[in-house]
Amino acid sequence: MTKYGDIQTRREFLHSIGNIGGSAAVYQAMISMGLLMPGDATGAELRDKWAAKSSQISGDIKPTVAVLGAGIAGLCAGYELKKAGFPVFIVEARQRPGGRNHTLRSGAIVHEVDSQQSCTFDDEEELYFNAGPARISQHHTNLLKYCRELKVPLQALVNDNRGAYIHDSAAFGGIPVRAREVITAVRGNITELLAKAINANALDGDIGIDERSFVLDVLRDYGNLNHNFEFIGSKRGGILSGTGGLMPSQSSEPLKLDDFFFDTSVPFRINFGESYNQAATMMQPVGGMDRIAYAFANELKQELYYGVEVTAMRRAGSRVRLEGRTNASEGAIEVDYAIVAMPPSVIKNIPNDFSLLTRNAIAAAEYAKPIKIAFQSPRFWETEEEIYGGISWTDAEILQIWYPSGGFGQEKGIIIGSYLFDGFHAENFANLSIEARKEFTLAAGEKVHSQYRENLSRGISVAWNKVPYSLGGWVKSAPSSILQKPDGPFLFAGDHLTYLHGWQEGAVISGFNALNNLLDIMGV
Amino acid sequence: MTKYGDIQTRREFLHSIGNIGGSAAVYQAMISMGLLMPGDATGAELRDKWAAKSSQISGDIKPTVAVLGAGIAGLCAGYELKKAGFPVFIVEARQRPGGRNHTLRSGAIVHEVDSQQSCTFDDEEELYFNAGPARISQHHTNLLKYCRELKVPLQALVNDNRGAYIHDSAAFGGIPVRAREVITAVRGNITELLAKAINANALDGDIGIDERSFVLDVLRDYGNLNHNFEFIGSKRGGILSGTGGLMPSQSSEPLKLDDFFFDTSVPFRINFGESYNQAATMMQPVGGMDRIAYAFANELKQELYYGVEVTAMRRAGSRVRLEGRTNASEGAIEVDYAIVAMPPSVIKNIPNDFSLLTRNAIAAAEYAKPIKIAFQSPRFWETEEEIYGGISWTDAEILQIWYPSGGFGQEKGIIIGSYLFDGFHAENFANLSIEARKEFTLAAGEKVHSQYRENLSRGISVAWNKVPYSLGGWVKSAPSSILQKPDGPFLFAGDHLTYLHGWQEGAVISGFNALNNLLDIMGV
Repeated sequence: MTKYGDIQTRREFLHSIGNIGGSAAVYQAMISMGLLMPGDATGAELRDKWAAKSSQISGDIKPTVAVLGAGIAGLCAGYELKKAGFPVFIVEARQRPGGRNHTLRSGAIVHEVDSQQSCTFDDEEELYFNAGPARISQHHTNLLKYCRELKVPLQALVNDNRGAYIHDSAAFGGIPVRAREVITAVRGNITELLAKAINANALDGDIGIDERSFVLDVLRDYGNLNHNFEFIGSKRGGILSGTGGLMPSQSSEPLKLDDFFFDTSVPFRINFGESYNQAATMMQPVGGMDRIAYAFANELKQELYYGVEVTAMRRAGSRVRLEGRTNASEGAIEVDYAIVAMPPSVIKNIPNDFSLLTRNAIAAAEYAKPIKIAFQSPRFWETEEEIYGGISWTDAEILQIWYPSGGFGQEKGIIIGSYLFDGFHAENFANLSIEARKEFTLAAGEKVHSQYRENLSRGISVAWNKVPYSLGGWVKSAPSSILQKPDGPFLFAGDHLTYLHGWQEGAVISGFNALNNLLDIMGV
Repeated sequence: MTKYGDIQTRREFLHSIGNIGGSAAVYQAMISMGLLMPGDATGAELRDKWAAKSSQISGDIKPTVAVLGAGIAGLCAGYELKKAGFPVFIVEARQRPGGRNHTLRSGAIVHEVDSQQSCTFDDEEELYFNAGPARISQHHTNLLKYCRELKVPLQALVNDNRGAYIHDSAAFGGIPVRAREVITAVRGNITELLAKAINANALDGDIGIDERSFVLDVLRDYGNLNHNFEFIGSKRGGILSGTGGLMPSQSSEPLKLDDFFFDTSVPFRINFGESYNQAATMMQPVGGMDRIAYAFANELKQELYYGVEVTAMRRAGSRVRLEGRTNASEGAIEVDYAIVAMPPSVIKNIPNDFSLLTRNAIAAAEYAKPIKIAFQSPRFWETEEEIYGGISWTDAEILQIWYPSGGFGQEKGIIIGSYLFDGFHAENFANLSIEARKEFTLAAGEKVHSQYRENLSRGISVAWNKVPYSLGGWVKSAPSSILQKPDGPFLFAGDHLTYLHGWQEGAVISGFNALNNLLDIMGV
């Protein structure tokens, strides 16, 4: 609306390209101009290529591939290699698949370097805690294809709940307010100010006199302004209790945003649900994120070895010599190729014959130290506060409170009491004792929910930087182009190789990349 | 931010009330000032009152109540009366409970006054079509309490999907664009314009020089503007294909909004998901909305009589004489009270002894004529277009396309091909033959989804104004205060008595109102 000079020129320009429009138009235009970068390999193409490769090499001379690590990247690579008929095995140090894809439910164990916790939730389908990844975006196509193929049931995850709270100790008297109140007031105020500027002729260079009434109509509806273009409250922000049933609904008083705008950092939280990877529709597997890991593992029963820790990754001529140990023994094996599907935070501690470039790239990967803690509780957020799923945001040390998106209406639920991405509070949390973490969470969380202490129990926490075989949450630096390429017979996989670090979709894309690279180095 | 004169005054005022804030503060303030109107009766209070009443009257002299109509209002009233130990029966003309709460699945029948359809969907759990109400808001507390009590499993309903389409034949070259593209561009443009006005000192009276940088920071984040406060595109609106995995994500070209703002009515659609009753979190029962109706009916097996059409509602002294018929016979019965839980569109055709005031109120109720049509289809919207649930909006005659919020990743799904609330297109649709309705829907819908004809089949439609015992969707006028009160031994119930017409929560509130009125007229 402001990009193409005067109205005449602008509209002519638009109509001249107007037969196609939107991103579809841009996409087509970029393809035709040769500007579009090649897409990430899709699973179907890759599978076809591997099937073709498989038919070129007779069974007994097919190279053997070891996959190191049964996180999503390793599982994906192993699954495709098996499907293509290549000899493959996956070694995993833990006794379970998934890596950071870890769902805690009754009886699950959380290992940290200096502690061990057992999950004491009641044994019910919906009483689980996705301690690692907990969301799938609807454009995480490659991961979703595996969910479909492996028959992992998915359900909607509520990421942006307008009934959840925004709590800002420096605004609104420190009292939690509903997200809908804040979002509506921000929209209303912004729109009112713009309408005022337009009506004062302050933007005549941008909006012509013949356009003004159209724009003002759109603005009035956008901000829910009154006929004088004033924001005097909106039912979008909430209605007065007792109205809207037998009596007409009355909008609640709009929030005053002064403190919110001027004194705090919280205003930025309301835009969270707008981002590409976080906007609706978000999804989750029914019953826990590890349904995906176990669905892969179920297809790899013969190929997957748990409890095997890799102790060295050596070259043996052009091949790979792997050394490892279990609880009971040590050993070594030679294979043709290895897909190293472990995080750099772990790889860097394992003796290896990688090139200097590779070793430097691995050493340079800095890891975020996220923490999460969850509790079992009666669903007071549903019965007493009308909150069904979603996230409350607070400027208290816990940052986020997550409500379960599954099992609505059941008696008990799992509430995530804190999810910190990184930084001072997260490090502090990680260094607390297991008991002190719970107290830390309750003390901050009861600023948002006064019912916390009487309801929350059975807390269990994960500080990912202290979890062996993970040693961190996700890489903070840009992905290494070095590690995206093979290093002799070694190939790398993991979300850290993509711009979707911390997302399972990134892990899958990295697995595809390793398999594409492997095809290249195997030659025709 | 613009409401309290100069900065000094405004902030002082805010800080003076700053110890409490938000709607909680307003609510408390209104209670203390005596301004708050009485809330709608809650179920728990009502149940207590009825239990007390029950204990005052011995079993054999408890009055008998007939409930006419087994929609949600009638079911709710009957359920509470039974729970209180009063003799009650419910008569229902159809062979099923729920009224407009009607879920179509394999074998279901749609009756209209001049046609009959049988649902030929495959017999699978997720292949259902909520032909009537399809959404529950998280603040529809009374209905949700029944879902909890009757153990009806609920799941999130995706109402606002940023990946669904906005299709505007007069904008963007008539090509459907993603909701995220439109919403992001609108936010970006509005925010850029406002920032420009602020930087041009056009709003100095509203935003002081000391506040400016705070406000501009908030705006930059809100609209995702660049460092010069220009909206040049945002990843929120989408990213270029092939980016964001192994390569950095690149935002897609922002939409040009000129045509959208100036030539069409569609811009108003993007605000749909902001409204109080439509904003996240929205819910639905797993497997179909009629799970609620059947859960009530399951508790009323002895009290519920299907296939009984009421043919007259007469007075017999201070009591009620009901006449009715079944397929096989006719009859009459006398009871103490009747709760008439049928829509006015139906009541007005039944001979009765209501007062003139009541009859006039019933005659004045004008009904909307909504239509819906659904088809079974492979889930191409998921596999080919990355759309999981939600609604696409179009200015074509069908207005809306709904994608299922359940069964993500399954092979088949039910897509709602059109949902028109009322008006010309809806009436036109209702008057088409059953076959012509399908063609009408496919012809309009393929402007949004080119895959329509090759995939959609087994279409089934409902034009609510032509459905016997409903004869419309919801009342368009304000609820009648006359009908909210008893007329002798007659009480009325139904969503039409509330400002939540068309919502099941309204039906429940109306049921509570009838029961409260009944307590009053029964006296102590």
